[in-house]
Amino acid sequence: MLTDKAKGENKMPSKATLSRLPEYLNYIRCLPAKTQCVSATAIAKGLDLGEVQVRKDLASICGNGKPKTGYCVTDLSAALETALGIRSESEAVIVGAGKLGTALLGFGGFADYGICVRRAFDCNPLIASEKVLPVAELPSYCALHQVEIGIIAVPPSDAQAVADLLVKSGIRAIWCFAVCRLEVPENVTVQYENMALSLAHLKNRINYNY
Amino acid sequence: MLTDKAKGENKMPSKATLSRLPEYLNYIRCLPAKTQCVSATAIAKGLDLGEVQVRKDLASICGNGKPKTGYCVTDLSAALETALGIRSESEAVIVGAGKLGTALLGFGGFADYGICVRRAFDCNPLIASEKVLPVAELPSYCALHQVEIGIIAVPPSDAQAVADLLVKSGIRAIWCFAVCRLEVPENVTVQYENMALSLAHLKNRINYNY
Repeated sequence: MLTDKAKGENKMPSKATLSRLPEYLNYIRCLPAKTQCVSATAIAKGLDLGEVQVRKDLASICGNGKPKTGYCVTDLSAALETALGIRSESEAVIVGAGKLGTALLGFGGFADYGICVRRAFDCNPLIASEKVLPVAELPSYCALHQVEIGIIAVPPSDAQAVADLLVKSGIRAIWCFAVCRLEVPENVTVQYENMALSLAHLKNRINYNY
Repeated sequence: MLTDKAKGENKMPSKATLSRLPEYLNYIRCLPAKTQCVSATAIAKGLDLGEVQVRKDLASICGNGKPKTGYCVTDLSAALETALGIRSESEAVIVGAGKLGTALLGFGGFADYGICVRRAFDCNPLIASEKVLPVAELPSYCALHQVEIGIIAVPPSDAQAVADLLVKSGIRAIWCFAVCRLEVPENVTVQYENMALSLAHLKNRINYNY
């Protein structure tokens, strides 16, 4: 959660700006280790964004860069992490411990963005392990650990039932890898991740050369 | 590849329109099985886009929908598939057969977008199988099968070397899951997929309630 100050209307960046903040942080983190300064021009070029837009976005969370040198990488990184609420940790759980669920469970990169993914849940008791629990334990686990995010990695035919269970378990957001449309209450945020769609975008870019 | 007609300057949709076409197709495909018609209003609402934008995008590939009923789902789907070049198949290869590479190799959904992923390549001979080949065979495989897309699923420290090998093997686009920045020739398209970043976006949306 963010502080009241960060939530205050005057301080609140626009939705469009917010949606770009993780990209900026990722860009900064991919810079060579000893980089001290980075210019809005370089960031704009690296992310294929307009320079004016980048300057405006960064100004809203970190003031203006210095003429010629740009932003201090450490300061900009800290400002982005604060704006993104990364310094407070959220827990996410995975439902479905097949190939994808297992790959996500083993992926170490979520911690870099303040999200820990410690457990997956599956209805198949044969694959239960220290990290993969029976799906019947999902509600109590979510309540005990104040889990905010549920990751759906089950087939589309099971996705709605899993979403319903996650909502009942009190989660606030769903990251859905099943290709389907979920019905959830208004106060629950759903983000769909369609791996095939990402690859389709890339194929499209080759075909049209953009 | 697209037909000359689709490539002709008059017929070429804008880059922004093109980038939304896969989303439209995905939306159409997620409609209940018996849906015959879909309106631009419903699509705009479902995808959180502006209605004017949706109408303009669809008009550029499929003409205008009918008053009151909207678009015939079958026609719109066919027009989107043609515009996206999905009816001609492209082959992609995975480099790195760890958890993520294996999950991608086992994922059946790419075929829905005209992309086949038949093989992964890995430098560890112990995990070689019918579907996982030694990385030394990558160049000859790519040449023989006219592979267009390389998927990088190795650690960041190995990603540039893999990208260089893919470029030498003649691929035209790279889908990169390693968190890094690749240097590639100008005629090679790179699309980065950062799973942690997607989840960071979702966390951000909960924190700011957007």
